[in-house]
Amino acid sequence: MLDYKLLEALTAVVEEGGFERAARRLNITQSAVSQRVRLLETTLGQPVLARTQPPSPTSAGTMLLRHARRVELLEAELGCEVQEATQAKGWRTLAVGINADSLATWFVAAVLPLVAQEGITFDVKSDDQERTQDLLRKGEVAGCVSTRETAIQGCRAVFLGVMRYHCACTPEFAERWFPAGLDLGAARLAPAVVFNRHDTVHDRFLSARLGESPLQAPRHHVPDSLRFVDFVLGGAGYGMIPHMQAIPPLAEGRLVDLAPGDALPVRLFWHCWNLESPLLDTLTRALLQSSRTELIQGQT
Amino acid sequence: MLDYKLLEALTAVVEEGGFERAARRLNITQSAVSQRVRLLETTLGQPVLARTQPPSPTSAGTMLLRHARRVELLEAELGCEVQEATQAKGWRTLAVGINADSLATWFVAAVLPLVAQEGITFDVKSDDQERTQDLLRKGEVAGCVSTRETAIQGCRAVFLGVMRYHCACTPEFAERWFPAGLDLGAARLAPAVVFNRHDTVHDRFLSARLGESPLQAPRHHVPDSLRFVDFVLGGAGYGMIPHMQAIPPLAEGRLVDLAPGDALPVRLFWHCWNLESPLLDTLTRALLQSSRTELIQGQT
Repeated sequence: MLDYKLLEALTAVVEEGGFERAARRLNITQSAVSQRVRLLETTLGQPVLARTQPPSPTSAGTMLLRHARRVELLEAELGCEVQEATQAKGWRTLAVGINADSLATWFVAAVLPLVAQEGITFDVKSDDQERTQDLLRKGEVAGCVSTRETAIQGCRAVFLGVMRYHCACTPEFAERWFPAGLDLGAARLAPAVVFNRHDTVHDRFLSARLGESPLQAPRHHVPDSLRFVDFVLGGAGYGMIPHMQAIPPLAEGRLVDLAPGDALPVRLFWHCWNLESPLLDTLTRALLQSSRTELIQGQT
Repeated sequence: MLDYKLLEALTAVVEEGGFERAARRLNITQSAVSQRVRLLETTLGQPVLARTQPPSPTSAGTMLLRHARRVELLEAELGCEVQEATQAKGWRTLAVGINADSLATWFVAAVLPLVAQEGITFDVKSDDQERTQDLLRKGEVAGCVSTRETAIQGCRAVFLGVMRYHCACTPEFAERWFPAGLDLGAARLAPAVVFNRHDTVHDRFLSARLGESPLQAPRHHVPDSLRFVDFVLGGAGYGMIPHMQAIPPLAEGRLVDLAPGDALPVRLFWHCWNLESPLLDTLTRALLQSSRTELIQGQT
């Protein structure tokens, strides 16, 4: 069997971004950490870590990390008494990849009850909803919320629900920029608010509705889910707002829907390692329960 | 002089992350974009773009981009009539690097009035407050909010104010995990909430206060400024909360300050290109005005 003390050193260096912090986390000296990583490399006959700043795993190192994280989860399931000193006793860490809009809306309420109940610490990594699956593929997370439907090898996928995005702006903005409604001519001139350059929701909506998404139009990029909405509320542009965040301002008349009845549906899936793990099962159930309440609202 | 049509193609490919989107933004064919980039490379006698996915600039390409962005800003200042078809007429884009906590708190209110008044689109890039300056150094942004005091070459720096972070948790959490107050023994066991692994606020505070920041303690990582606060409010851990977000829950008794009178001060600076630019001057003034109102509150 592999020497897991060595693997643990590798994991700590990568997660903490350096040998010094890894040493502090493991409560050993920095030279002991280096020694363990070197010994792992000697055992395997190949490098596992590029000594860059921060250190990054080689492809062999990435495979080892993916393996180590699964073993850690399985070990955590055995119960507190067999947990290693890598973590404070009784705590289990779950790394998850969550798309920014889910993180800003329904995710936290779903997992907070688990935190107290199950003694879990969450290591949330946020990325675009079309890219969270890469985190799972690389083994950096045990599960992710993704728009992809197909499970990757060694993982399972369940349908969470549909998140709907309304194309919205202030009434004054609509009057000035879309006097004849949402058409391509107006969309070529009107300033838009987009999350970031990986965000495809805006372009997909306009392409489906107008045949193209004019990239020549002025665009704000505001990579914070709530401030994004503030930009739209402040009249800076029009943008695609998740149903849950759009409903109050639409009801109060602070926003208007530029395409009533034509919200863009984004189907979300939960992907996680296909392991016999009560912890992953509990998390999956909690996410499903919360998403069924929160996301299905978007269907009405 | 350089052929700016070629440079514009390079900029579009890098900003849009590909030749196809660049072509759509510039309203030319994809092969015209490739041709322009190749011609630029022939002129300079060296590659400017690695054809990776997404394409990334070489070091020569990076220098050209930095130059192109400054020229764009200066050109925008000339007035609408001379603006190129790269952008919808009358709009000027300002790329800025903003730390996550500033973006979540005072930044948007500061710039929203400018958006309507000046016809600016903002391209906000969010990063850690100790790393935003790298975006400026690489020329990806015209200005940034940073903790660094010293201006880099070709840039100027102004002091924005002090953002104070309170070490806070719920009263129940304090009672359970810090019955004798904030000491090192308790901090070794209590779960903490940290933004992400680049966030140094938590470690700096504990190191200053307790002599070390125990990395063995359980940690949640929640990379969303508001959900981070929700984790603390939900009793999942203790964490460093910006003054503006901490004050209401502290006043209502939903949170307690584990180190009253000892909030961690983080000095913030605005760095921007040292150009004769009324646009940058206007932005700088707006940020200073807003930060003086919002950030100085943290000093009391």
